Amino acid sequence: MARTAPLSGFPELLPAQRHVEQQVLARLTRTFELHGFANLETRAVEPLDQLLRKGETSKEVYVLRRLQATEEGNDSGLGLHFDLTVPFARYVLEHAGKLEFPFRRYQVQKVWRGERPQEGRFREFTQADIDVIGRDTLAFHHDVEVARVMLAALGSLAEPGGIGLPGFRLQVNNRKLIQGFYAGLGAPDVEAVMRVVDKLDKLPRERVHTLLQDDAGLTAQQADACLALASITTPDTSFVEQVRALGVEHELLDEGLAELAAVVEGCAGLVTDRVEIVADLTIARGLDYYTGTVFETRLHGHESLGSICSGGRYDSLATDGRTTYPGVGISLGVSRLLVPLLTRGVVVADRSVPSAVLVAVVEEDRRAESDALADQLRARDVACEVAPSAAKFGKQIRHAERRGIPFVLFPGSAGEHPQVKDIRSGDQTTVDPTSWTPPVEDLHPRVRFDEQEQQ
Amino acid sequence: MARTAPLSGFPELLPAQRHVEQQVLARLTRTFELHGFANLETRAVEPLDQLLRKGETSKEVYVLRRLQATEEGNDSGLGLHFDLTVPFARYVLEHAGKLEFPFRRYQVQKVWRGERPQEGRFREFTQADIDVIGRDTLAFHHDVEVARVMLAALGSLAEPGGIGLPGFRLQVNNRKLIQGFYAGLGAPDVEAVMRVVDKLDKLPRERVHTLLQDDAGLTAQQADACLALASITTPDTSFVEQVRALGVEHELLDEGLAELAAVVEGCAGLVTDRVEIVADLTIARGLDYYTGTVFETRLHGHESLGSICSGGRYDSLATDGRTTYPGVGISLGVSRLLVPLLTRGVVVADRSVPSAVLVAVVEEDRRAESDALADQLRARDVACEVAPSAAKFGKQIRHAERRGIPFVLFPGSAGEHPQVKDIRSGDQTTVDPTSWTPPVEDLHPRVRFDEQEQQ
Repeated sequence: MARTAPLSGFPELLPAQRHVEQQVLARLTRTFELHGFANLETRAVEPLDQLLRKGETSKEVYVLRRLQATEEGNDSGLGLHFDLTVPFARYVLEHAGKLEFPFRRYQVQKVWRGERPQEGRFREFTQADIDVIGRDTLAFHHDVEVARVMLAALGSLAEPGGIGLPGFRLQVNNRKLIQGFYAGLGAPDVEAVMRVVDKLDKLPRERVHTLLQDDAGLTAQQADACLALASITTPDTSFVEQVRALGVEHELLDEGLAELAAVVEGCAGLVTDRVEIVADLTIARGLDYYTGTVFETRLHGHESLGSICSGGRYDSLATDGRTTYPGVGISLGVSRLLVPLLTRGVVVADRSVPSAVLVAVVEEDRRAESDALADQLRARDVACEVAPSAAKFGKQIRHAERRGIPFVLFPGSAGEHPQVKDIRSGDQTTVDPTSWTPPVEDLHPRVRFDEQEQQ
Repeated sequence: MARTAPLSGFPELLPAQRHVEQQVLARLTRTFELHGFANLETRAVEPLDQLLRKGETSKEVYVLRRLQATEEGNDSGLGLHFDLTVPFARYVLEHAGKLEFPFRRYQVQKVWRGERPQEGRFREFTQADIDVIGRDTLAFHHDVEVARVMLAALGSLAEPGGIGLPGFRLQVNNRKLIQGFYAGLGAPDVEAVMRVVDKLDKLPRERVHTLLQDDAGLTAQQADACLALASITTPDTSFVEQVRALGVEHELLDEGLAELAAVVEGCAGLVTDRVEIVADLTIARGLDYYTGTVFETRLHGHESLGSICSGGRYDSLATDGRTTYPGVGISLGVSRLLVPLLTRGVVVADRSVPSAVLVAVVEEDRRAESDALADQLRARDVACEVAPSAAKFGKQIRHAERRGIPFVLFPGSAGEHPQVKDIRSGDQTTVDPTSWTPPVEDLHPRVRFDEQEQQ
């Protein structure tokens, strides 16, 4: 076993880093379940024809082949899923008869993309998705609901006592608003306008202004209006007035304005100093796929990570020809968010094991005493481990220290209570083994967001 | 999206079934962490040369190919892992400098095997592994430890108030014992004897007796002794006396007897009426791979599932040529255990959503009141959801009923307290929304093991 170099694009975490990820996933899971979302897992593979329905993703698929397959039937016809939306849509069609609609689920799984190895591109990563899917119809208030649930989830990651991430900005836009605006403006090709405006983050404003005329057939005045629309960002519903001031009228625009205002208003109660929501008419990504509400999310101070949480409304997330299943959802890029922060040491856990206590072993023949003490602690929900050898106590203490275990418990001699040492302070006291537990804040590894490290 | 037939070998669960799996995994995780095992995840892929080190598994590997790869470099050189041991060994070598030894980890992940589609064979399934790995040396007491931890974990699945699985039998054997016995007996080819004895579960005893003479070069008397050894099973250390009575002497036999006795004795305190441990000298599987202790496990009343939890001691779980890493571990086949029980309806959860309460909506314009009531419940850790439409209350109650949600909360008119209906009893009472919570046993879906269904 010689080849042990890391594989580019397949991030792996050390135990303390994985603990941070576990904490993040536990908080997300808790929020999703408090809102009635049931968990699902779908198989890792889908038939290739499912995965390739959208041509532009085909290059990213890993195809599976059985090693011993005959030459003729080389490929299995299966590929690894590259997101959780395609498998979820297939799952809903396959199990529709056994599901209750509107169906609400969350899903936390790995996905794979056969990217060429490249800095910062993951080939395996974890996503956490929530979706609500209806049969035939799905009320608009579910758009507000998924935004609220994801804001609550992000809020739980930003709590200073929890993970302490620096804060998030959920950006919402609406395709009906944009499309209605362009149509009301008299654009000859609405899709072409969207494609050009989408280039605003790569090209200078003047260049986009020119392209809107050359490629999308707008007048200079119409192009002005499009750029004015694309610059509107408000933390409240005042965007409605700003859009109205541009003087464009269209039924679809009205609908989009009302929907976007409803999302922003519906989420107002969840805004904190660490989690904000904005109506952001500049975000364009996803407008191609989605049919109404569109979400993106930035982590404060780490905007270079891009959108770490995106989604929106599909009028037809799945269809079997007879029945259509509209849906709305958001996908949080867990690896996209965490791996860079963990790798740079911005977020750390203070120990590499769950153990709050190391039970020392006095001599190998008395290991059973230490095992019994450990079991007493476990019966009170205290994670602990027993020293691997009856080495000198100094060595056993260092064993705990290297793992970040805060307490060492020394069994007493016959008839004596054990002593416990807090290895941070050095304090050592006699304790009653039937009742002692570490302070609650030491029971589990603590996660710390380190502002110093983030530069 | 037409092709929605299930893929053979890739089991998928419905939400209520997945809840059972989540409960099982939560209990396993809790036990592993209470014993100081840290969680790890390894990437899903390994270089093919790693996966193919053991020839006999090569046929089961799924190889990955990027869909857009050029003809020349068709395969990525990567395959999906078929267990969690090979990736863990590679992980230890790759990260050895950043790990503390003995290193204890648990790992719960999917694995894949490119089997031909066949009844009961999974091509994707979940395993839960615990291992302790040392650098250069690993004390024997860790063999006892992993047995104790897995017994505690299995015990948590068999608790009547929990999952309520019918009970487990952990069977332990020891390769040194077997090998030492054959050597002490004067067998000319110890490996050959092991291979023949391994056929006892397929061939009649007389046939094995003949083969031991013809293929393994034993005398009839020696063959008698081997078969006598292979029939010994005791729930305590009395096997030592039974083996001694066969009159064979060998240093390795002594060592094996002492180790096996230590495992059985060390676990005695964990035996309950639902979880037992036996020294079982009939189990042979794994003797080829392992170098000392060997584990297998049967679920009471479901022996046809085979061993649902297996493992043992490796003197060299990993090596980089200079350093050797001995290890001991056990792997629980979560899918192997659960999928047949779930599919046959032997284990069920009583609802398909986490929600304990459905908050009714009086009229669509008053949805915000229902949202606020739901948030009050969530602040007290009560999972709930708000009705999807302001339909007639009878329809909203049926919405809850179909999901198994036990309570419906009706917002009161202005200035009035809401009312809550237990839809199982039909009882409806006025409650204070700032303090009411459902009874604790209704807070989460309940899992039930149904003895009636198991026939």
